[in-house]
Amino acid sequence: MVRERLKNEVQKMQGEFLGFRPGLVVLQVGDRDDSNLYISMKLKAAAEIGINANHVRLPKSTTEDEVLSIITSINENLSVHGLIVQLPLDSLQPINSERVTNAVAPHKDVDGLTSVNAGKLSRGDMGDCFIPCTPNGCMELIRQTGVSVAGKHAVVIGRSKIVGAPMHDLLLWNHATVTTCHSKTRDLPTQVGRADILVVGAGRAEMVRGEWVKEGAVVIDCGINHLPDETRAGGKRVVGDVHYPSAQQRAAFITPVPGGVGPMTVAMLMENTVQSAWRLLKKRTSR
Amino acid sequence: MVRERLKNEVQKMQGEFLGFRPGLVVLQVGDRDDSNLYISMKLKAAAEIGINANHVRLPKSTTEDEVLSIITSINENLSVHGLIVQLPLDSLQPINSERVTNAVAPHKDVDGLTSVNAGKLSRGDMGDCFIPCTPNGCMELIRQTGVSVAGKHAVVIGRSKIVGAPMHDLLLWNHATVTTCHSKTRDLPTQVGRADILVVGAGRAEMVRGEWVKEGAVVIDCGINHLPDETRAGGKRVVGDVHYPSAQQRAAFITPVPGGVGPMTVAMLMENTVQSAWRLLKKRTSR
Repeated sequence: MVRERLKNEVQKMQGEFLGFRPGLVVLQVGDRDDSNLYISMKLKAAAEIGINANHVRLPKSTTEDEVLSIITSINENLSVHGLIVQLPLDSLQPINSERVTNAVAPHKDVDGLTSVNAGKLSRGDMGDCFIPCTPNGCMELIRQTGVSVAGKHAVVIGRSKIVGAPMHDLLLWNHATVTTCHSKTRDLPTQVGRADILVVGAGRAEMVRGEWVKEGAVVIDCGINHLPDETRAGGKRVVGDVHYPSAQQRAAFITPVPGGVGPMTVAMLMENTVQSAWRLLKKRTSR
Repeated sequence: MVRERLKNEVQKMQGEFLGFRPGLVVLQVGDRDDSNLYISMKLKAAAEIGINANHVRLPKSTTEDEVLSIITSINENLSVHGLIVQLPLDSLQPINSERVTNAVAPHKDVDGLTSVNAGKLSRGDMGDCFIPCTPNGCMELIRQTGVSVAGKHAVVIGRSKIVGAPMHDLLLWNHATVTTCHSKTRDLPTQVGRADILVVGAGRAEMVRGEWVKEGAVVIDCGINHLPDETRAGGKRVVGDVHYPSAQQRAAFITPVPGGVGPMTVAMLMENTVQSAWRLLKKRTSR
């Protein structure tokens, strides 16, 4: 399991480099409930693995210039190997989130969202880039099925910066033939029906129906949607972008929501942070 | 026509800003025949339009450090708005061309090949990026057909940095459903047969057969290949990646080779250079 492996790696680092620990900063502006929940899961995973994680919380009144200046100081802090900005920014001020994301030093960008990292991933220069956590987790789940990706027809629904677009890149550079679908795609059921591997990050509850899915396909569902459900505590339940009960009958492998992609995403953030620390240590020792 | 429009724009610049001219540098290492030919076409187009183009030639003995230091000085030269490094580098020294490409300042990268520009294009942040010239020219040719791209099924063959990968991005962010095929694609004829818009940058002479092409498709051929032909002066002829005589019978529109994509690529380099100069002028006047 990924977390177990990372824990062992961090212990190895601590042994070899006198108590060294990888450092992660999670920068949050504001106080969104969903962000709070995701951040708590990241901090918990970091603690389990032995990563030194700090949660930097800024008030809703923070300006863009203030956010940028804090990012610069974290970029310069030698004990921090990974810096992520929790999105969306919950600010009362106008903040350009593209500018904020790109202010993170590429070698600390463990979310893989800077233009430099996106450019490397999209062009197949994967040697020193960071792969965004959700697509990286999806690839790990696909690898765990034992299905080889090269030469397969993969279909990605969605083209967001954190899921669809980098997922396309990863599948392509693992040598799949990749089709990207989105809100303007006309014949979505037909496109889905051609997929040996289907990755869905559309943000619409249960939009992919089981009847569309190719018999024996691998189906990875990145959706997290809330449907009203009076039988549940809280009055709602969480579903993915795929209609699980029907798709499960045709897919050879399908990830559940919750419990599939989500935990793997958190694990991959830890993986990138540990990788970033290793890169630094190797640079130091090669001098 | 693109060149005519750019010529007028440069005249307008000269009028408004007292003899100002956009500046372009073409940096060449070595002396490849094909590079010499391409560079001469770029210099000729620049001269026609009124762009001040300089050809910087370095000997084959040039080292990577020397190339990088020359790029830095051109980055800092205020009269240069566009800098391209002619690839492939023809050097006797080991030169990392990824490192060289990325040394060009992103705001002068009129070839659009830096990771920063690739990252912006691949994620749809097109506001201030430069689009690589060949895909940009292909889009211009598609626009000229009058066929709308949004919602169409586009197929791209090839995933190179200068053709296939950025072409995918451009078609995607113009809202096509896009499939990328490459050497590992298993059922190429079937994939090609689904394309309303087909762009080929595979580098293999006449590999796409007319029978594969969908009736009424738009076919853009980026290939430049040489086939032996004793009936021609020089003993060879230039063909594309598409078998033109057969594909022409099914396509609604098809670009010839030579004479299709090539001249448009040169025009787009000029377009990017003029655009870069405008960006600078606007920044100056907005101060």
